[in-house]
Amino acid sequence: MNKIIDSPLILASKSPRRKKLLKQIDLTFKVIPSDVDENLDIKLFPPDFVSHYAKMKAESVSKTNKGCYVIGADTIVVNNEKILGKPKNKDESYQMLSSLSGKTHKVYTGVSIQHYDYKIDKTFHEVTDVSFNTLSDLDIYYYIDRYKPFDKAGSYGIQDWFSAHVNKINGCYYNVMGLPLASFYRHFFALMK
Amino acid sequence: MNKIIDSPLILASKSPRRKKLLKQIDLTFKVIPSDVDENLDIKLFPPDFVSHYAKMKAESVSKTNKGCYVIGADTIVVNNEKILGKPKNKDESYQMLSSLSGKTHKVYTGVSIQHYDYKIDKTFHEVTDVSFNTLSDLDIYYYIDRYKPFDKAGSYGIQDWFSAHVNKINGCYYNVMGLPLASFYRHFFALMK
Repeated sequence: MNKIIDSPLILASKSPRRKKLLKQIDLTFKVIPSDVDENLDIKLFPPDFVSHYAKMKAESVSKTNKGCYVIGADTIVVNNEKILGKPKNKDESYQMLSSLSGKTHKVYTGVSIQHYDYKIDKTFHEVTDVSFNTLSDLDIYYYIDRYKPFDKAGSYGIQDWFSAHVNKINGCYYNVMGLPLASFYRHFFALMK
Repeated sequence: MNKIIDSPLILASKSPRRKKLLKQIDLTFKVIPSDVDENLDIKLFPPDFVSHYAKMKAESVSKTNKGCYVIGADTIVVNNEKILGKPKNKDESYQMLSSLSGKTHKVYTGVSIQHYDYKIDKTFHEVTDVSFNTLSDLDIYYYIDRYKPFDKAGSYGIQDWFSAHVNKINGCYYNVMGLPLASFYRHFFALMK
């Protein structure tokens, strides 16, 4: 925290996890969610997919908040080259979790930092490998019934009860939660005078 | 959570982080800290060091709570084969953090699960590699002044503001916080009938 942030900061996301993470590193900001929705049918490689949506989300809020820094982000889970979004219901949730059981998958987050007046558009992504223990059906049903993970890509939260089943990660932990804090911090403060 | 826990559970640690982690995986338990103190001069390799102290901590509480499961744990940070405990003051804190800057170190946690009446003594350890961004002196002083990390091995908390400087881990994240949840969950429920 060695530089002055010269404009107000806006988080263009309604994710409570991203809000918590930005607070964790002592930033002051306003939340203005974008109205951009992901379309999983778009044919893009995962790094391009998350960068594309992070950029769209930041842009949509930036153009009506021209004097502010705006942060957009997009997170997806990729298993066997298939993108997993948010599960629509219990069945989809069960399918996703059992497909991830006992294996390693990848989590991509794209981040876009924009400032309309300053003509800043810095977009980057991070990837983290996540390894699960083998899940029993009882574990999966307990989790779905109790935690209702329908707002989470891949149908799990690495920071809740499900943490009992994540035996290893390789990469940035906070990337899995939805915002890679270390790379965000480095890129963001590099933009300040 | 597919088996009944057949005795009360005690956490033999006053660490607020370990308490938070056990709650996170929906366990009900009492906290009875042990009075065992680490002696960093003991000549043991890191995995033996943390296992030794985890076991001593669990034993000291188990012998007066014979009908309970007791969990002891011990966490150390190891950099260039040197064990870093908790810093005694600002100077030690500064020394530790600058020695870790821009490099990868290891975090070991030993865990011991004991039940006196059932003659259970299950002790194991986990290791996680943690990589820091390069820290400026301003970053280090900001952190020490604001977060006073004197109760933390290695002088940092991976879950607080310092998360902005941890660019990568390889292994269990919760191991770095003080309790490797996935291996604990697996070992603990394997003990139940």
